[in-house]
Amino acid sequence: MTSSVLISARMRSTSSTEAEPRRRIVFSGIQPTGTPHLGNFLGALQNWVKLQQDTSPNDILLFSIVGWHSLTLPQDPKRLSVARREMLAALLAVGLDPKRSTIFHQDENPHHTELSWVFNCITPVGKLRRMTTWKSRLATSRNANDESEVDESMLNTGLFTYPVLQAADILLYKATHVPVGEDQKQHIELARDIADTFNRQFSKTFPLPEYVATTTRRVLSLKDPASKMSKSSPDVSSRILLTDTEKEIRKKIRGAVTDSVTGVTYDPVNRPGTSNLLTILAACTNEDIYELAKRYEIKGHGDLKNDVADAVVKLLEQPRAEFERLQGEQEYLSQVAREGAERATAYSTLTMQEVRKSVGLT
Amino acid sequence: MTSSVLISARMRSTSSTEAEPRRRIVFSGIQPTGTPHLGNFLGALQNWVKLQQDTSPNDILLFSIVGWHSLTLPQDPKRLSVARREMLAALLAVGLDPKRSTIFHQDENPHHTELSWVFNCITPVGKLRRMTTWKSRLATSRNANDESEVDESMLNTGLFTYPVLQAADILLYKATHVPVGEDQKQHIELARDIADTFNRQFSKTFPLPEYVATTTRRVLSLKDPASKMSKSSPDVSSRILLTDTEKEIRKKIRGAVTDSVTGVTYDPVNRPGTSNLLTILAACTNEDIYELAKRYEIKGHGDLKNDVADAVVKLLEQPRAEFERLQGEQEYLSQVAREGAERATAYSTLTMQEVRKSVGLT
Repeated sequence: MTSSVLISARMRSTSSTEAEPRRRIVFSGIQPTGTPHLGNFLGALQNWVKLQQDTSPNDILLFSIVGWHSLTLPQDPKRLSVARREMLAALLAVGLDPKRSTIFHQDENPHHTELSWVFNCITPVGKLRRMTTWKSRLATSRNANDESEVDESMLNTGLFTYPVLQAADILLYKATHVPVGEDQKQHIELARDIADTFNRQFSKTFPLPEYVATTTRRVLSLKDPASKMSKSSPDVSSRILLTDTEKEIRKKIRGAVTDSVTGVTYDPVNRPGTSNLLTILAACTNEDIYELAKRYEIKGHGDLKNDVADAVVKLLEQPRAEFERLQGEQEYLSQVAREGAERATAYSTLTMQEVRKSVGLT
Repeated sequence: MTSSVLISARMRSTSSTEAEPRRRIVFSGIQPTGTPHLGNFLGALQNWVKLQQDTSPNDILLFSIVGWHSLTLPQDPKRLSVARREMLAALLAVGLDPKRSTIFHQDENPHHTELSWVFNCITPVGKLRRMTTWKSRLATSRNANDESEVDESMLNTGLFTYPVLQAADILLYKATHVPVGEDQKQHIELARDIADTFNRQFSKTFPLPEYVATTTRRVLSLKDPASKMSKSSPDVSSRILLTDTEKEIRKKIRGAVTDSVTGVTYDPVNRPGTSNLLTILAACTNEDIYELAKRYEIKGHGDLKNDVADAVVKLLEQPRAEFERLQGEQEYLSQVAREGAERATAYSTLTMQEVRKSVGLT
């Protein structure tokens, strides 16, 4: 069972205990990193698409490209501007439907920073100090070996306060379910905390959002299986992009780092490179990884790599073609962005009216 | 010479050194504390009115009621909502002209929190930690005796980051001159710093705003001349409100704490109560305080109090009548607020377009 099927099962089970199923509001966000790589695709994006297929038509789905968050680390503005538009095209290319889901740029709905300000005013500085994700984000962006190499003197106020903005992203839509990675779990806790504080201090406005684990699949670098597949690694052969050609995909997988042990086994600790290929294959074919591994016990790395390449090529074939096609449809993309922002803003206008009334800014 | 005349003289002198006078953009803000007291009136408000009279018609004047800032300390929401509307009425009642000046609620222009977010991302946390005003604001709000009684455990993220929002308030309009109290000087320094950082890191967008001292008049409590006249003091006889009747004004000034020394001298350190009355009289009549004091040398406190009461009654007579009248004109007030917000947003839209392009969010 894939993790996204798990998500929908879990979300359904919530409703089955109630007389009338509660409408679920799902919110998730992704940074505008540009063309997604295989790790993004098998992580967040494919899960979002499955959510779209599996949830009840009554449920509301919101998927946001969180531009304000990207400013918390240094960016090349020109590249960011391109990446921002590419990410929208990618969301459509993988199968998100702007008629079913609200797909929008966070920075095109002004309520995000407004609600974030209100939440700033009820969030103790000490609580933010206990959030630790800024350390790992800073370490990654500085190519530090570990978090001990970064300290608060490098910390800007945006990176320090972004968990509050994230709480606003979620609560603005009164989201009930937030599918995000494990590393974001503490931020969902903070969002619940902030919602609870607001409800008690002013008026019962926000549901407490539930963290939903998106995936157990952690796709690793093809060149350095000690780290995640990443857009920021200087070695382009360490990742497969949505835009890679069949030839590029096959070449990168052929060159993937494995080991010299004979035969294939799933052993993420001792054989991370080999196990990573199994992870990718299992994700592409929706198979159980242990059953899959059994089939390869007597085969070699060559066979495995061939099959992984076939599976990845097949998986990305349609999204890649669609992504390419959408690159020629800039006007359509602008229209999707505009309509998405309008719909998101229409939802959040109601929340902000309540919030303003509650805090006295009317 | 009053300090506001000084302001205009200083602002003019800037332009006189240039071939073509630069258009000045003046921004200032006031918290929505409701009906202003005499201290507000003789401080910010009267200065704003004089600026309106004295500056060149080419100059742009923006006066904002800064609702988002009021949330940094606990508020009664119902009271805040009333206070917010009363403050707008008060600005008009004292003589600000919505045709000449852009008078608006900060929280009705969404760009303030957006630009504040962008600035968060280029402002080191360490720099905010060196801002000290939050300590005094927290101490005042908690009725602490001094700042050593408050510590960071009581600090919320809004109060910690409000100097960044203040920088956004100013720079959103590319303000060149910011008339504010002495205690805000370090925030104007921060705004200049942030403007400079943005200009260097992204593109030359913001002028460095100049701090303009609003006034040297510090109106003290009538009951405890060791502290400023304040809206938060529990003793209503310690302050004169714009809405006080002639009878109330005379009674409060008769009851003002002075001393038992014979004769009247201006000696703020040793005779704060007596000196405060002289300050008020000088401000009302636009006289030099030392010349004024000379005239009272041989008179007693009774004479002084009578004359202060006459002067305050005369000063507030018209604003009070106008304030009362405007209370019956809620529709007109809403219209002024709406048009002010529209005008402010129209100005700042241009700035935000530039900012978004510079940082890559387009």
